[in-house]
Amino acid sequence: MAPIQRKLGEGYGNFKCGPDDELIPLIDHANVACGFHAGDPLIMAETVKTCKQHGIAIGAHPGLPDIQGFGRREMKLSPEELTAMVRYQVGALKAFLDAEDVPLHHVKPHGVLYGMMYRDPDVCRAVYQAIPKGTPVFGLAGTHHETIAKELGLPFVAELYGDVKYNKDKTLVIDRKKKAWTPQETKSHIASQLHTSTVTAITGETIDLPIGNHEVSLCCHSDSPGAVEIVRAARGMVDEFNREQGYT
Amino acid sequence: MAPIQRKLGEGYGNFKCGPDDELIPLIDHANVACGFHAGDPLIMAETVKTCKQHGIAIGAHPGLPDIQGFGRREMKLSPEELTAMVRYQVGALKAFLDAEDVPLHHVKPHGVLYGMMYRDPDVCRAVYQAIPKGTPVFGLAGTHHETIAKELGLPFVAELYGDVKYNKDKTLVIDRKKKAWTPQETKSHIASQLHTSTVTAITGETIDLPIGNHEVSLCCHSDSPGAVEIVRAARGMVDEFNREQGYT
Amino acid sequence: MAPIQRKLGEGYGNFKCGPDDELIPLIDHANVACGFHAGDPLIMAETVKTCKQHGIAIGAHPGLPDIQGFGRREMKLSPEELTAMVRYQVGALKAFLDAEDVPLHHVKPHGVLYGMMYRDPDVCRAVYQAIPKGTPVFGLAGTHHETIAKELGLPFVAELYGDVKYNKDKTLVIDRKKKAWTPQETKSHIASQLHTSTVTAITGETIDLPIGNHEVSLCCHSDSPGAVEIVRAARGMVDEFNREQGYT
Amino acid sequence: MAPIQRKLGEGYGNFKCGPDDELIPLIDHANVACGFHAGDPLIMAETVKTCKQHGIAIGAHPGLPDIQGFGRREMKLSPEELTAMVRYQVGALKAFLDAEDVPLHHVKPHGVLYGMMYRDPDVCRAVYQAIPKGTPVFGLAGTHHETIAKELGLPFVAELYGDVKYNKDKTLVIDRKKKAWTPQETKSHIASQLHTSTVTAITGETIDLPIGNHEVSLCCHSDSPGAVEIVRAARGMVDEFNREQGYT
Repeated sequence: MAPIQRKLGEGYGNFKCGPDDELIPLIDHANVACGFHAGDPLIMAETVKTCKQHGIAIGAHPGLPDIQGFGRREMKLSPEELTAMVRYQVGALKAFLDAEDVPLHHVKPHGVLYGMMYRDPDVCRAVYQAIPKGTPVFGLAGTHHETIAKELGLPFVAELYGDVKYNKDKTLVIDRKKKAWTPQETKSHIASQLHTSTVTAITGETIDLPIGNHEVSLCCHSDSPGAVEIVRAARGMVDEFNREQGYT
Repeated sequence: MAPIQRKLGEGYGNFKCGPDDELIPLIDHANVACGFHAGDPLIMAETVKTCKQHGIAIGAHPGLPDIQGFGRREMKLSPEELTAMVRYQVGALKAFLDAEDVPLHHVKPHGVLYGMMYRDPDVCRAVYQAIPKGTPVFGLAGTHHETIAKELGLPFVAELYGDVKYNKDKTLVIDRKKKAWTPQETKSHIASQLHTSTVTAITGETIDLPIGNHEVSLCCHSDSPGAVEIVRAARGMVDEFNREQGYT
Repeated sequence: MAPIQRKLGEGYGNFKCGPDDELIPLIDHANVACGFHAGDPLIMAETVKTCKQHGIAIGAHPGLPDIQGFGRREMKLSPEELTAMVRYQVGALKAFLDAEDVPLHHVKPHGVLYGMMYRDPDVCRAVYQAIPKGTPVFGLAGTHHETIAKELGLPFVAELYGDVKYNKDKTLVIDRKKKAWTPQETKSHIASQLHTSTVTAITGETIDLPIGNHEVSLCCHSDSPGAVEIVRAARGMVDEFNREQGYT
Repeated sequence: MAPIQRKLGEGYGNFKCGPDDELIPLIDHANVACGFHAGDPLIMAETVKTCKQHGIAIGAHPGLPDIQGFGRREMKLSPEELTAMVRYQVGALKAFLDAEDVPLHHVKPHGVLYGMMYRDPDVCRAVYQAIPKGTPVFGLAGTHHETIAKELGLPFVAELYGDVKYNKDKTLVIDRKKKAWTPQETKSHIASQLHTSTVTAITGETIDLPIGNHEVSLCCHSDSPGAVEIVRAARGMVDEFNREQGYT
């Protein structure tokens, strides 16, 4: 099955980020911001309650300590700092989950932290070491994400992107502010990932994105222009794919 | 003359706050956030450039050091801290004005800091002491705002509010998040202030708001629901008032 | 028994706060800063490890969201915000405790947040509601601290202060920066609390501080000038008191 | 002449950083932290007053927006952000200088921002573009620091380091926390720079550090262990050098 995951609760204080209310009915998994790149404690409390009401599984979405840069400005941190920073954020979210008696479903690092994990296995390892054993992590199949997760006892879920482009080397293109996608572009982008395990890189090459023998999750952003249409298009694709594969 | 002032540049990093682009053509004066309650350096630089292009006079809008609370959570600060904090913010904005070769038009404290100045003359004095001599300040006529400003050599501009209600004691009702106003409510609220120098308090009493012999500025918020309609209604009122008074 | 508790891990990044290393051998319980008034994730990780090595029981020390003000500038927060803010911080610390397989021993709110709880039962309730059932809280015996804790299923531990003065109304005098105490002043201050359940207020009155039928914990600060001497003096007093009472 | 410059005012709120009081009498120029890596508004106000009293010339010491990391964690920022960020900080300091009627003596970027300027001329240019024309900048002679400064109309002052080691490529070794130096190590380090325009890199090579035809400033840190002894040793060296060169 290919459920749809989305970032939620990425406002901060009075600041808004993304049309959370309209997107809630369209998604299966939420990546909840944990206060470092977005998401203050009150927003986290409210987001967890909303997800619980709608039966959405909740994952932690830890990011770099940079509200101003929304966790999209690369920072050089030591492995010890990375581990401590992720442990702190996952623990903070866990307190809200415990209060609502819902489990931690997964951990999905945010923004450029995720990009840093792609490029540097040491960063990936430092981040994964912070995660409680047995907690699933979302990453790119066939890379050190998968190897290190297994080594550390973390179940691995393969991830596709609905609204993020890839570089030739399979790394993601992390923009500081999201560019607009048409629903048709989203559909093509998702279709090639779902049906042919390939995607077209921004430089034009066709690159392989083998999903392997994994559960798959499809990630969309809340701050993309046209986020609602993108997720609606993705929802349709994924539902059709699941029907074809014989999932409910 | 009664020009319209508005808060601008109150986003933070990727976080949005208010429909700045649509409001620009409707206002005369901007209160530019200075980084403590909102407004990072890049947003300040861009806001100053935009105001300059549209011929909008620029004032500093210093606030409490609380991005998460948008400067709307009261904090107890010493007079020395208040002075230093306002001096810092006004100086920071001044650097962007100097770079664009436009003058600092006025200083208007933000949010609950402004509320604290209403209630406590010591806070008002500490804030005003931070402001370069000769810089106009916007405040409530007939209160210690006016007295202290004059004592410290700061020209005083009387201020009316288009979208903020008053308490019986003339203090402003500072909500953490702005409530919706209809354009009609805004028009009545402004009309009574402009034409009868009174306003209806939230508890129903009619209170006097004498403008005195001052220049008058009318303040509207950017994060009120329906901000564009509110400012458009205010624009009409003020233009009509100015024509009646014989201003161009 | 009257163990000694102390604040630990109240640095921030490269910034130091208090001679933690010298004080470790003298205390029984640590109140570990959780990142809002002090204590970044790396410092928390290291402080938890150090406490574990020395057999010191670890409590959470949540504070107001104000690094610059060290959690000693009063802020007006809603009950929902207070609960969310404390839940977040306790959860973050819990993640480091879980990683080291040590239990959360207690929760002790920090600085002016503690002062706000003294003055306002609603603040106290909002804070206590954030704490996992069954976790002991440290507070002032014979006040709403005790009543609300019991009502919410939180074991209550009576607390005395070695280096904080009291106002006539039993509230604590929270200075922004700690004043110096001589070891002799500390001894008298502690002795009257331990032996006569009274203390002299800063305005000269003798006030009652009945401990009641509770476990007692004695709190000292890490950023008081002469902190090491103060804690050493306290250690002696408490050991003697415990011997007299027949505790080991 | 080779005056001694030092970082001052690098505490934050209640957090201390360096023995400012003891170092004041030993230095000629201060680099005052501007709030982003350290130095809140109140500390800035007090540091400026202290420097004025002791006749110390004051420069701005802008850093990366990272209190937790003390501006020593590299961050990827756009040129526009770098310019805005430095302009903001220099303007903020300028407000305190204006209030005390003392001039801005120079600008010296802090920590890893300075390191980023060494490695990347675009970063250097973005930083220098933020500085008011005619304000001297401190940098490494014979590099793009010098070229870009001249191009932008900024007087250039060559800088030597008393307590920072060099890499083979003349870049500085920026440690997150400063290592200890003996006064004798400091003396040798300074002597080779002053007398032979060379220094020994951490990998053992002798590298040229030609001062050229510039005024020279010698930089020491306030958070080095043994900072007072280091600066005292440097003071002696520099006074002797100045006497030898025939400066007063």
